Amino acid sequence: MASLKAQPAFCMGEHTLTVPIKLHDLNRQRLCDRLRAKNVPENSVVVLQGGESTTRYCSDMEQVFRQESYFHWTFGVIEPDCYGAIEVKTGKSHLFVPKLPESYAVWMGKLHSLEFFKDRYGVDEAHYVTDIADVLAGLKPDILLTLKGINTDSGKTCREAAFEGIGQFKVDNKLLHPEIMECRVIKTPLEIEILRYTNRISSDAHKEVMKRVRIGMKEYQLESIFQHYCYFTGGSRHMSYTCICGSGENGAVLHYGHAGAPNDKTVRDGDICLFDMGCDYCCYTSDITCSFPANGKFTEDQKAIYESVYKASRAVMNAVKPGVSWVDMHLLAERTQLEELKRHGLLKGDVDEMMKAHLGAVFMPHGLGHFMGCDVHDVGGYPEDGPPRPSEPGVRSLRTARNLEEGMVLTIEPGIYFIDALLEQTLNNPEQAKFLVPEVIERFRNFGGVRIEDDIVITSDGMELLTCVPRTVEEIEAIMAEGRQLPSPFPQEKLQPKE
Amino acid sequence: MASLKAQPAFCMGEHTLTVPIKLHDLNRQRLCDRLRAKNVPENSVVVLQGGESTTRYCSDMEQVFRQESYFHWTFGVIEPDCYGAIEVKTGKSHLFVPKLPESYAVWMGKLHSLEFFKDRYGVDEAHYVTDIADVLAGLKPDILLTLKGINTDSGKTCREAAFEGIGQFKVDNKLLHPEIMECRVIKTPLEIEILRYTNRISSDAHKEVMKRVRIGMKEYQLESIFQHYCYFTGGSRHMSYTCICGSGENGAVLHYGHAGAPNDKTVRDGDICLFDMGCDYCCYTSDITCSFPANGKFTEDQKAIYESVYKASRAVMNAVKPGVSWVDMHLLAERTQLEELKRHGLLKGDVDEMMKAHLGAVFMPHGLGHFMGCDVHDVGGYPEDGPPRPSEPGVRSLRTARNLEEGMVLTIEPGIYFIDALLEQTLNNPEQAKFLVPEVIERFRNFGGVRIEDDIVITSDGMELLTCVPRTVEEIEAIMAEGRQLPSPFPQEKLQPKE
Ligand SMILES: [Mn+2]
Ligand SMILES: [Mn+2]
Repeated sequence: MASLKAQPAFCMGEHTLTVPIKLHDLNRQRLCDRLRAKNVPENSVVVLQGGESTTRYCSDMEQVFRQESYFHWTFGVIEPDCYGAIEVKTGKSHLFVPKLPESYAVWMGKLHSLEFFKDRYGVDEAHYVTDIADVLAGLKPDILLTLKGINTDSGKTCREAAFEGIGQFKVDNKLLHPEIMECRVIKTPLEIEILRYTNRISSDAHKEVMKRVRIGMKEYQLESIFQHYCYFTGGSRHMSYTCICGSGENGAVLHYGHAGAPNDKTVRDGDICLFDMGCDYCCYTSDITCSFPANGKFTEDQKAIYESVYKASRAVMNAVKPGVSWVDMHLLAERTQLEELKRHGLLKGDVDEMMKAHLGAVFMPHGLGHFMGCDVHDVGGYPEDGPPRPSEPGVRSLRTARNLEEGMVLTIEPGIYFIDALLEQTLNNPEQAKFLVPEVIERFRNFGGVRIEDDIVITSDGMELLTCVPRTVEEIEAIMAEGRQLPSPFPQEKLQPKE
Repeated sequence: MASLKAQPAFCMGEHTLTVPIKLHDLNRQRLCDRLRAKNVPENSVVVLQGGESTTRYCSDMEQVFRQESYFHWTFGVIEPDCYGAIEVKTGKSHLFVPKLPESYAVWMGKLHSLEFFKDRYGVDEAHYVTDIADVLAGLKPDILLTLKGINTDSGKTCREAAFEGIGQFKVDNKLLHPEIMECRVIKTPLEIEILRYTNRISSDAHKEVMKRVRIGMKEYQLESIFQHYCYFTGGSRHMSYTCICGSGENGAVLHYGHAGAPNDKTVRDGDICLFDMGCDYCCYTSDITCSFPANGKFTEDQKAIYESVYKASRAVMNAVKPGVSWVDMHLLAERTQLEELKRHGLLKGDVDEMMKAHLGAVFMPHGLGHFMGCDVHDVGGYPEDGPPRPSEPGVRSLRTARNLEEGMVLTIEPGIYFIDALLEQTLNNPEQAKFLVPEVIERFRNFGGVRIEDDIVITSDGMELLTCVPRTVEEIEAIMAEGRQLPSPFPQEKLQPKE
């Protein structure tokens, strides 16, 4: 019996996950099965172009390459500038790698043979990119299937494979996109295994951050701790997205952390922290948000908001299963949060009426959650034949309106935010203003926000929770108390806790 | 008197460097002075376009923005999607920022006024990008000067400013590039202050790595420690380039660390480590290489090679001053290394003859060093009116062939590598093979390499060394011995030292 080690795999060391390359073989098989079921011409050949290496602006500073997600899903190749092809009838796979100059050996490392790439990526044949037209012509395809379609989160169109000599082939760029996208929506057990891993690493990294946060630190120092934990311990070189490390009022800025607001506020006593961070391993993502008090102890107001969001999170977790509408889940979260805000005295009146007045979106202007996979906002949210994007406030921000199916991976991320711009609009809208208790709302003006974000897989009768972080008020306060015993990772007088 | 804090500045916290925005004001003044001296039309207006925000492939995953270097040098703006203009006659500056939608307040943060940007960036006027054509027309320019020219390291052409309505102006895209490039070559005291800072942080981070390296670690775990130190302690969110963490034979791969060779080898007992890493702060870079034995103790062979390179490094440092040719410095380093390799028994014969046979490039196939500034391979190496790129092996790899001038910042990075491909070529070339002592060379086959890279500023009578890391064999062994006392930063049974 061949040892596990002999199988081609992606692995960043014994302390990390070994991902068998057959994951991608299985993905290709699923894609071919699906295409054949759609009665594509018998000798169809799928052709994908991988991501290219890039330098920053006009400089020669090469950016760290991360494979394009469709290409990764299909071939698992870590190098830039490749192509891949699959014969749909047989499932036979071809990888095309760049023919590198001799000088590559001096600058970039050993020149590998085609045999090396064939073995490493478990494909049937490996060729040079320069031979792609000839190799494909040799397959005598009825048609080449290339990838073109809109990403409904970005609005961008994915880049169709192009190469010299493609003009000699009959090409269809419409058939492939909906099918490969749909394959990506339902995750295989091998894919779920990686998502369990990215969740474990990111969860542990969040715990590390909760333990090490100190009043007087900069938010980005916690981003740095998170990234270091994920890379050092988990072998994760990329984040799934830019870390959002909002403390205090910044928690109400949904995409805080970008270049114009680079996690550079000082964490103050009394702040609530909303930290949304997730690592990427083998081009599979994670997306986790933890909210906790900077000083380790919830105030009564913080606890009220936190437990309102927590209740919404768990209500959704209890309700999800195959067949359930994601739009209904969003509404369930909204309703739960509104009920709780009423119970805590921030709102008054009838919750059904509030729902009709779209009050939920005032406090949670984003969607309840999204597909997650090779991209953090994974593809397939709005397929041509699926439910269209709703038009009402709140639910229209959903990245999918589909019914749940076994094998889908989603985030559940309810939140309550006090966003000045939205509160102003609401107070000026008599249909909505009547539900607010202004003097209480006023108290929360610079509160920021709370989000609780977990990653789940839909199972045959419910869900599996992938994320594992402290979630109750008690659990959070306990781990933070434990963390107070730890020294800062680097000596910095100015960062000693003030206590 | 206004307090320092009231001055607009870039700063990532009290523990980091405060960079006054007047650095960019001074850069603009220098540029205008230079353009006026070149007799550009009186009412010339420089127009630059800043870097744009980008998402990864067709996804909505936004990449962490880093400003384009020419735009940063001129305006110091951290946000994407801006333009800037300077009236050459008066030096009056205009910044154009995007007009953001109301929803920005919910997703990205507070919408800032034009007044805010005017103050933050110390420009004379701030406008919206949508008004750029009107504002520029109001200046009644004789000509707009846009930036177009080739980066001699990448071969890429920088992107010329473009906007709707530019057609109504007379535009020249040739005058600006050589002048702004030349301004960037000579650093001001304010710029040198940042480079001192990036060097201090990177130097300390290298020391942290030397202390924490353990046999059995993955190379990338040391990359992670370096990055964490720079960000956590120095506020440096970006690296100047992808970390090169080559251990053992990987030290002979000059650009190791890229996606296809992602610092994923296990560090072994007996390896020499060649770690080339530098942080970026306020869009100014650093570029430092340390070479040290993984187990903390040099072998005799490692010491021989290390001290050969060290001797070359210090020979160059002693020789540099204004007026000296950088090509001569490269040859001095080559000669010193060849002499040492001969002394240590790897080479035989006359060193002058070796130099004529270009033997230096066998062991050091890269250039001695390069300009460094807003880009790690900074611009201006081969201006139209400067010395052209040499054609001989070795020196032809230099990124500049200029004579040194006060205020230039360069790396000095001699190295000796045992690269299979080059050794094979050499052994097969009778003109070169005669100098090799094959049985000794054979012993170094999997040695890897040693590089010692420091950053310097040319002063009126010599140089200032910006880098501060242990450099002698004794210093390195001492700091590594000290580091053996430290625990691993995260509990990982498998990473415990084997001792
Ligand atoms: Mn999310
Ligand atoms: Mn360098």
